[in-house]
Amino acid sequence: MIRVVIIGSGNVAQHLIKAFAKNNIVEIVQAFSRNKENLTNHIYSSKITTDLNGLIDADLYIISVSDNAIAEVSHQLNLENKLVVHTSGSIAMTDLNDKNRKGVFYPLQTFSKSKEVNFNEIPICLETENNEDYKLLETVAKSISDKVFNINSNQRKALHVSAVFVNNFVNHLYKIGNNICNENDIPFEILQPLILETANKVSLLSPNEAQTGPAKRNDSQTINSHLQFLTDENQKEIYKMLTKSIIDNGKKL
Amino acid sequence: MIRVVIIGSGNVAQHLIKAFAKNNIVEIVQAFSRNKENLTNHIYSSKITTDLNGLIDADLYIISVSDNAIAEVSHQLNLENKLVVHTSGSIAMTDLNDKNRKGVFYPLQTFSKSKEVNFNEIPICLETENNEDYKLLETVAKSISDKVFNINSNQRKALHVSAVFVNNFVNHLYKIGNNICNENDIPFEILQPLILETANKVSLLSPNEAQTGPAKRNDSQTINSHLQFLTDENQKEIYKMLTKSIIDNGKKL
Repeated sequence: MIRVVIIGSGNVAQHLIKAFAKNNIVEIVQAFSRNKENLTNHIYSSKITTDLNGLIDADLYIISVSDNAIAEVSHQLNLENKLVVHTSGSIAMTDLNDKNRKGVFYPLQTFSKSKEVNFNEIPICLETENNEDYKLLETVAKSISDKVFNINSNQRKALHVSAVFVNNFVNHLYKIGNNICNENDIPFEILQPLILETANKVSLLSPNEAQTGPAKRNDSQTINSHLQFLTDENQKEIYKMLTKSIIDNGKKL
Repeated sequence: MIRVVIIGSGNVAQHLIKAFAKNNIVEIVQAFSRNKENLTNHIYSSKITTDLNGLIDADLYIISVSDNAIAEVSHQLNLENKLVVHTSGSIAMTDLNDKNRKGVFYPLQTFSKSKEVNFNEIPICLETENNEDYKLLETVAKSISDKVFNINSNQRKALHVSAVFVNNFVNHLYKIGNNICNENDIPFEILQPLILETANKVSLLSPNEAQTGPAKRNDSQTINSHLQFLTDENQKEIYKMLTKSIIDNGKKL
């Protein structure tokens, strides 16, 4: 079994611990958390340490803490020439401390505590300094996911920015749709099939081919009537900017 | 059987003709198209008329033409005191001509010619002037969909605006994600599971609960590094505006 230590207790750390639990290739031999209670639902209490200097020997150390803390935590590790990776989409591999071998193990997904995820379907993006470490990391990743990709730090940054657009920003547009429904006594569930269809569509058509609606048609009458309907200035501004972007994009083709 | 005439030959008209074809409650007795060829794949050629004055007797006439043409087409109809409805999310019922009984039959979905849809799952929003017409329209709608809602013109407008946010604008954000991937030699398929998970999530959690990411955390370091990464001015502006909107929204709670 490949011996792995998880350092951190947030959403990603918890989901990783759960995913590896059903695994006969990887064993989580230890997890670090400042507060033991964060992890006691996910791993035996005896395997949790609250002392960063008390990490035991392992083949792989996965740092899964907030982006701002990764460099510092990697600096504080009382280890030498071990394979130490982080799970962040936006931090370069080189931000890890030089005393250990560096790598990245980035599961590209959105994790909420209250929502189960199927790790099999989650793409995991890997990067290491050398081939041998890559092979180990790949074995670990493939033990929980069917979709493992070799992605360098610059590509990972691009992916993370893209993910902000297709996840955080998309979810914010869902929220605006939800608000408009609430204000007009319309059940948000009416929009669910449209939301799912829109998401499903772009696995068959490119987003460019899939586009429909008043902006795509440059239908100024409908656009103006929507702008008159909206009373929230912020919603109005977002409507204007995205409509202009769709129209300008159409002109480029 | 309820006798229905479809007036129009666009995406919605074609999908409606297909949906009613497998139906033993509704019969499409005629379809109008300026160009016969638009519909010959979907209905017997003998049932297609190119003459708006040649419409035959029916229980229901569904005008499914572009928004700008609905009022004029309803004016041109050589009919009196018939139930005439349109399929638009953004046109008021009252825009239909007074010589017939008015109604709306609005399937809230995105239709592309090249993508099949399951009409069963598509919410249909109905409005009529009187109860008897509502019952007929409801029977017609329930013959193809499990999700039929009574939605007045103002609510329909709100829904249509919401749909622009959760469909057209969301799809445009997918397109930006796709562009960023292309520019960095990353297969767009890496983002597909995230796109689907984001869409699925809001049927279990509210969009507000589902939100994650740098804007939600007000993580200025990541936000600034993303803005530095983006070179396209339009992408930068959209990133800034939606990030600000997420941060401002968090402050309100």
